[in-house]
Amino acid sequence: MQVRLPKRTFAEALGMLERIIPGRASNPALTHLRFEVAEGGLRLQGSNGELDLELVVPAEVEGEAVRLVPGQLIGQVVRNLPGELVELGLEEGQLTIESGSFATRLTTADPAEFPPLAFEAETVARLPARELGRALARVRYAASGEDYRAIFRGVQLELHPTRLRSVASDGFRLALYDLELALDAERKFVVPARSVDEIVRVLERTEGEVALGLLGGHLTLAAEGFRMAAALMEGEFPDYERVIPPEFALEAEIDATALKDSLKRVKVLADRNNHRVDLVFEDGRLEVVAEGDYGRGVERLEVDARGEAQMVLAYNAEYLEGALGPIAGKARLRFSGAASPSVIQDAEDGGYLAVVVPLRV
Amino acid sequence: MQVRLPKRTFAEALGMLERIIPGRASNPALTHLRFEVAEGGLRLQGSNGELDLELVVPAEVEGEAVRLVPGQLIGQVVRNLPGELVELGLEEGQLTIESGSFATRLTTADPAEFPPLAFEAETVARLPARELGRALARVRYAASGEDYRAIFRGVQLELHPTRLRSVASDGFRLALYDLELALDAERKFVVPARSVDEIVRVLERTEGEVALGLLGGHLTLAAEGFRMAAALMEGEFPDYERVIPPEFALEAEIDATALKDSLKRVKVLADRNNHRVDLVFEDGRLEVVAEGDYGRGVERLEVDARGEAQMVLAYNAEYLEGALGPIAGKARLRFSGAASPSVIQDAEDGGYLAVVVPLRV
Repeated sequence: MQVRLPKRTFAEALGMLERIIPGRASNPALTHLRFEVAEGGLRLQGSNGELDLELVVPAEVEGEAVRLVPGQLIGQVVRNLPGELVELGLEEGQLTIESGSFATRLTTADPAEFPPLAFEAETVARLPARELGRALARVRYAASGEDYRAIFRGVQLELHPTRLRSVASDGFRLALYDLELALDAERKFVVPARSVDEIVRVLERTEGEVALGLLGGHLTLAAEGFRMAAALMEGEFPDYERVIPPEFALEAEIDATALKDSLKRVKVLADRNNHRVDLVFEDGRLEVVAEGDYGRGVERLEVDARGEAQMVLAYNAEYLEGALGPIAGKARLRFSGAASPSVIQDAEDGGYLAVVVPLRV
Repeated sequence: MQVRLPKRTFAEALGMLERIIPGRASNPALTHLRFEVAEGGLRLQGSNGELDLELVVPAEVEGEAVRLVPGQLIGQVVRNLPGELVELGLEEGQLTIESGSFATRLTTADPAEFPPLAFEAETVARLPARELGRALARVRYAASGEDYRAIFRGVQLELHPTRLRSVASDGFRLALYDLELALDAERKFVVPARSVDEIVRVLERTEGEVALGLLGGHLTLAAEGFRMAAALMEGEFPDYERVIPPEFALEAEIDATALKDSLKRVKVLADRNNHRVDLVFEDGRLEVVAEGDYGRGVERLEVDARGEAQMVLAYNAEYLEGALGPIAGKARLRFSGAASPSVIQDAEDGGYLAVVVPLRV
């Protein structure tokens, strides 16, 4: 077999696969990528046992071949190649890679060792790939990194006839994103946050639609050039909607970047244990305040507030920063009191909603 | 007291001090910087017990003050300030920092707690600051990170009547840099590599000359705007000149960047334990070769070689890359055999010389 393709295309695909293929695994075949010369290009597959990825890379091909190649190694080799074009061949069971003045041979393994990947599910919904990516990316930060309440280590996707919702929470904060679209489905499932990160990365560079499927505890995603399958988590989120207060005593609009910058400055002075930063509203003014062992920091910000004249709310600064993270323009802040969950929305994108529970002080 | 100065100047000075001031120390005063309002500016001092740094920062000042301020914290605060200008004051023993809409107060401590710093030594030599910085920076990589033979964790400076030499080694490689200049001195001393890094950083942004002094086991450096004192290591390097072969059987000139790039590519295939890469010279040609568990990589490079027609030399790739690191243009490689130390020089800068011991194979 003979393959020719641009180094850049090949390196980019290997870079995506390298992120998934583990450096070590109890099944050594999983540290390899499955390399197949298919019609019109290369079919590359990798898996970490929880997430499977297949990329089809256009290339000039002659002949056929299926081999397993060390996954991390081939990525490193191809990234460093001197030329613009890469030529691949098979000699005595070794994959040859040539580019410019450089030539290498990599040992390969029998493709029969590779586990079968679970890409074949019936499509339950089709939607714009980038919008799905965005819906996942905007809430991802709120997922938990702790083992406690394991379900919160995932992102819940909800397919409804009129919308798709992504939700993440760690029990102290919540983020959701609603995408209005007609889906002929009514399903809920939870994707591990680590898999979500890789799915987002693939969706970001995908044009057009992606087909979602569900089969045997897996979510499958398929579009031009790629297929993925992610093992789902068992269970679903507890009823999170009840933590969103129905009414608010104070509402404010503020430039999200100005508030994020201020939090960054002020939190330097915050208590090292709880990272407490206070939002002090008084007669239409806002002060951001923190005080710790080494001193006190205060910043006064422009805000457009309506409702109760005075309110003091204490937060873990990092939670507040996280909730504001996906908002580029104006943020709408809604408070029903110092002891109730606060709501943060994107004033220019109705789909995003975050809930942050204030600190008990 | 009242101080006004540009945020950028202040943040830059604090950034240098922050690199030295430890986050934790058995003497808590060392985690602080000594802040003094002096004539025409601020005098800022920090120390980690091994290296002392004083920076004088021009500022508009009124009144007087000397306090200790938490060293890491003030750096973080100033870096994040919203305005271009910073105003400092003292209120009830707290340092106030104001800029734009942001105001903070930092607790301060009694300056009597701060250890006296050892800046006052008699000048033994004066030389251009940037050239000294370059002489140190070029050999620093060869210093050892291991506790074994502790003296090699430093960089040796040798002052001779007609030159300054910097030398570093870890026992398997050596780098030296000769700066031709008239010095009225004949001294040798070893500066800890960690202190060398900070000295280089300060010298890089220093115009004009720096005065070197020696006193009580310390090297002092002084120039416009700063003073430093570095505790010296005890002892001196063993006689390293005897490892440099007097004659060579093969000499070659090669573009240093081309060889570095090739090593980067080829070493990916090298044995994971010894990182072995071979340089194979044959009839005026050079091949860079590595072979490990996963395969083999080869690259052919343009080289201008004289002397023996054939020679194969094996190196730890990282040692070879280190020796080539400071060379931007052509490198001169000089070999006296596979079992003798190899010499690498900068063909365009006679001051630099590196020795790398080949692997025993």
